[in-house]
Amino acid sequence: MDISSSRRRFLQTLGLATGALAAGGLAPSAQAQGAGSAKNIIVPNPDLIGPSTDWTPRPSGSKYMGGFRAPKLDVVKMAFVGVGARGSSHVSQLCSIEGVEIVGICDLYQERCERNAATVEKKTGKRPPIYCKGDQDYIRMFKEVKPDAVIVCPSWEWHARITCDAMKHRIHTFTEVPIAIKMEELWDIVNTCEASQVHCMQLENVNYGREELMFLNMVRQGVIGELLHGEAAYIHELRGQMHEDVPGRGTGSTGSWRTYHYAEHNGNLYPTHGLGPVAQYMNLARTEDNFGRLVSFSSPALGRAAYAKKKFPADHKWNKLNFQGGDMNVSIIKTTMGRTILVEWDETSPRPYSRLNLIQGTLGTLAGFPTRVAGEKLGNGNYHSWLEGEALAEIYEKYDHPLWKRLGELAKKMGGHGGMDFVMLYRIIECLRKGEPMDQNVYEGCFWSAVTPLSEASVAQGGMPQVFPDFTRGDWKTTAPLGIIP
Amino acid sequence: MDISSSRRRFLQTLGLATGALAAGGLAPSAQAQGAGSAKNIIVPNPDLIGPSTDWTPRPSGSKYMGGFRAPKLDVVKMAFVGVGARGSSHVSQLCSIEGVEIVGICDLYQERCERNAATVEKKTGKRPPIYCKGDQDYIRMFKEVKPDAVIVCPSWEWHARITCDAMKHRIHTFTEVPIAIKMEELWDIVNTCEASQVHCMQLENVNYGREELMFLNMVRQGVIGELLHGEAAYIHELRGQMHEDVPGRGTGSTGSWRTYHYAEHNGNLYPTHGLGPVAQYMNLARTEDNFGRLVSFSSPALGRAAYAKKKFPADHKWNKLNFQGGDMNVSIIKTTMGRTILVEWDETSPRPYSRLNLIQGTLGTLAGFPTRVAGEKLGNGNYHSWLEGEALAEIYEKYDHPLWKRLGELAKKMGGHGGMDFVMLYRIIECLRKGEPMDQNVYEGCFWSAVTPLSEASVAQGGMPQVFPDFTRGDWKTTAPLGIIP
Repeated sequence: MDISSSRRRFLQTLGLATGALAAGGLAPSAQAQGAGSAKNIIVPNPDLIGPSTDWTPRPSGSKYMGGFRAPKLDVVKMAFVGVGARGSSHVSQLCSIEGVEIVGICDLYQERCERNAATVEKKTGKRPPIYCKGDQDYIRMFKEVKPDAVIVCPSWEWHARITCDAMKHRIHTFTEVPIAIKMEELWDIVNTCEASQVHCMQLENVNYGREELMFLNMVRQGVIGELLHGEAAYIHELRGQMHEDVPGRGTGSTGSWRTYHYAEHNGNLYPTHGLGPVAQYMNLARTEDNFGRLVSFSSPALGRAAYAKKKFPADHKWNKLNFQGGDMNVSIIKTTMGRTILVEWDETSPRPYSRLNLIQGTLGTLAGFPTRVAGEKLGNGNYHSWLEGEALAEIYEKYDHPLWKRLGELAKKMGGHGGMDFVMLYRIIECLRKGEPMDQNVYEGCFWSAVTPLSEASVAQGGMPQVFPDFTRGDWKTTAPLGIIP
Repeated sequence: MDISSSRRRFLQTLGLATGALAAGGLAPSAQAQGAGSAKNIIVPNPDLIGPSTDWTPRPSGSKYMGGFRAPKLDVVKMAFVGVGARGSSHVSQLCSIEGVEIVGICDLYQERCERNAATVEKKTGKRPPIYCKGDQDYIRMFKEVKPDAVIVCPSWEWHARITCDAMKHRIHTFTEVPIAIKMEELWDIVNTCEASQVHCMQLENVNYGREELMFLNMVRQGVIGELLHGEAAYIHELRGQMHEDVPGRGTGSTGSWRTYHYAEHNGNLYPTHGLGPVAQYMNLARTEDNFGRLVSFSSPALGRAAYAKKKFPADHKWNKLNFQGGDMNVSIIKTTMGRTILVEWDETSPRPYSRLNLIQGTLGTLAGFPTRVAGEKLGNGNYHSWLEGEALAEIYEKYDHPLWKRLGELAKKMGGHGGMDFVMLYRIIECLRKGEPMDQNVYEGCFWSAVTPLSEASVAQGGMPQVFPDFTRGDWKTTAPLGIIP
């Protein structure tokens, strides 16, 4: 057998076209770059941007949940699983929202349950039952109090399991970011949601920030023309969390469990705060466009080990970890329409906070940190300078989102990341009571969170493009873009 | 022959390890993402970051030019090829620098030659001969006036050819950015330089900007610790160049020829202004680190066609072009040490100018547009906010680069992009007169410009990583980092 026929046979075995390797200038390039090296790998057809068209069929009885509406609820009976720092904040805010009854609180630690139950009693006059008998006790709560909805805020590795268990009990489920951290978990969530037919929303609060809402409003009005490019980030120095280590609590506080993730995973571990708003500006997974593929590189991993060495005793557990996750991860997403999205993540390096929040179109660009806008249709049309001061104030005057106009004053008073937490929770209750679709569907939560496993795979493969799975099984083309909520 | 032995034979044919396709979780990932599609391609081993170790041996008689010094020149006899907008500016500035004699001016257009010759006569009292008899007339100039050095500023597609021809005439050659636009041209420049043993420097003026020099100084002093990540860009709305179309001049003005590049190429066509400074902060191609691999995606190509439609008659030549180059290109470079560099390019979209100019280390971050610094060793050490106002003024006071302190006042007076042009030209003449190495060697020019062909290849291949060639053939490990020039 000669080489060329051996080659053809092998390619056919893999389902590859025989002309591929020599086609279109690819082979010379690969050759010039040492393609003959060991351990080369095969990657997807560059002409198929994504999302992937490979999926197992949706089981009969399951339904696409893109525009799902549930029956109206007069009062929402709400339970909580996980009331650490984040869950406690949601408990406190929901006490003040009309049409909510807090019916159960579950956590690994009794003290937390009691503290939150006391908050509820103080604010509403009714003390909810608490569940703190181990890591399966949330199931008992689901069965006993039969909540309409549950807010899920445990450590990341519990997100998918509890989310799926809640949906199996026909409870509308609202899970903190990231909704899950592994690809299989994301599919489990989608499949369970479609089988259970309850709401499942990732709690991406940043989509309810004033700036983000205004940019969405501006984009929808065509102020910056056709969208081309976005930039998203979570740059937030959080090394201090490594000091969170309550004796006897195991993984009871954020840094005590997140630190292991940062040590053991190399990719973007927290993509959704920056990406969620950009995804909704672009209508990703909602008729117009979708996630296609992703490439990713990480910087060296230096900051956490250096911090451990500086701040903790030599024999401390942090000084025994092998920190493998690069301090800065940089990814680029290519969308189905060909748009580009930069996604950065760094929770280690000492630099000012930013989510970038940039959206660029053919007529102008809007950007965050600080808020800056420039474009042919903005201010005096001189797009060579960012609008600031009074000119920027006029932009807010003209384009503030109706939802922010309605809730912003109250939201600022209620607090929670500048009010975005309150607006999010208010909208969840409003949608449940009116029987309307959630502002973020289950697929959006999964697409946004999928950046974690995809970036990890790309980093591990030397920057190889990763194709997004299509969690909607092609149905995203039927889901209307998120409107401008009045 | 069974499938597995056929597969093994084929992999051996390509020099691949047989375990590769099934190794380390890569195969399941590829499978989940539709690797069975047609036209898949094979890419380099992800463990070999780059630069490539594949190169043809350096011919005998050729020498590595990393730290090259030429014999001192008392007076530098300088010639010019290409005196359009950019070349004319260099002519004018060099008239004012001591130790320069302008000995010849060549351009396709007589009017330009005469105008520049008149400038020289006015400023120096000596009118240089002009050469404008066609596109080979620069060869006649080289032979007749025997310049020591030449500044090469024609349209991009002429850069490599004229640069190589000049070096073959043993002339020190200074070529505008990008030094060349195709990979073969970059190798031609390297090989010709090594055979000719004259200086060949890309005229990257931005490395001489005040902010860039100061950041280099700060990085060298360890102010931001170990370097992790950089960001570089050329975001400069230049659609207006499409109006440059002098009747009867063919490709006589910038927009008249660049517009075709923007239509026909899809990648980062102008990477060096942002990348050059970041590369020198990181000591790339100078002992410590080097360019490894690159991934790239482009946004849709919408802006130029829309501008043509809006601003030109329906039958104008711009309205007959098929604009294929994405308005925004986003690339990520992974260095040999594992650092990451974001490189963006957009000369089309209406947004404010930026080169990003960000360098991030384990102790702090420096960034441009506007100048911002933050870090544990900067100001009061509160790295959660950028230093501004008086605190930033103190940074300038403390860290302004000695070269800027020496030349900055004069440079600002002389102008040329805020003085950076003058400092660059001054340094070139200074190095030639003192017999010192240039601040940018031929390999740096080629590495920085290589982003164009590599990004084009990555974009064409759906984001596939491209490994940098090693223009130094491994010798970058012997080239000292650029010092802080006093």
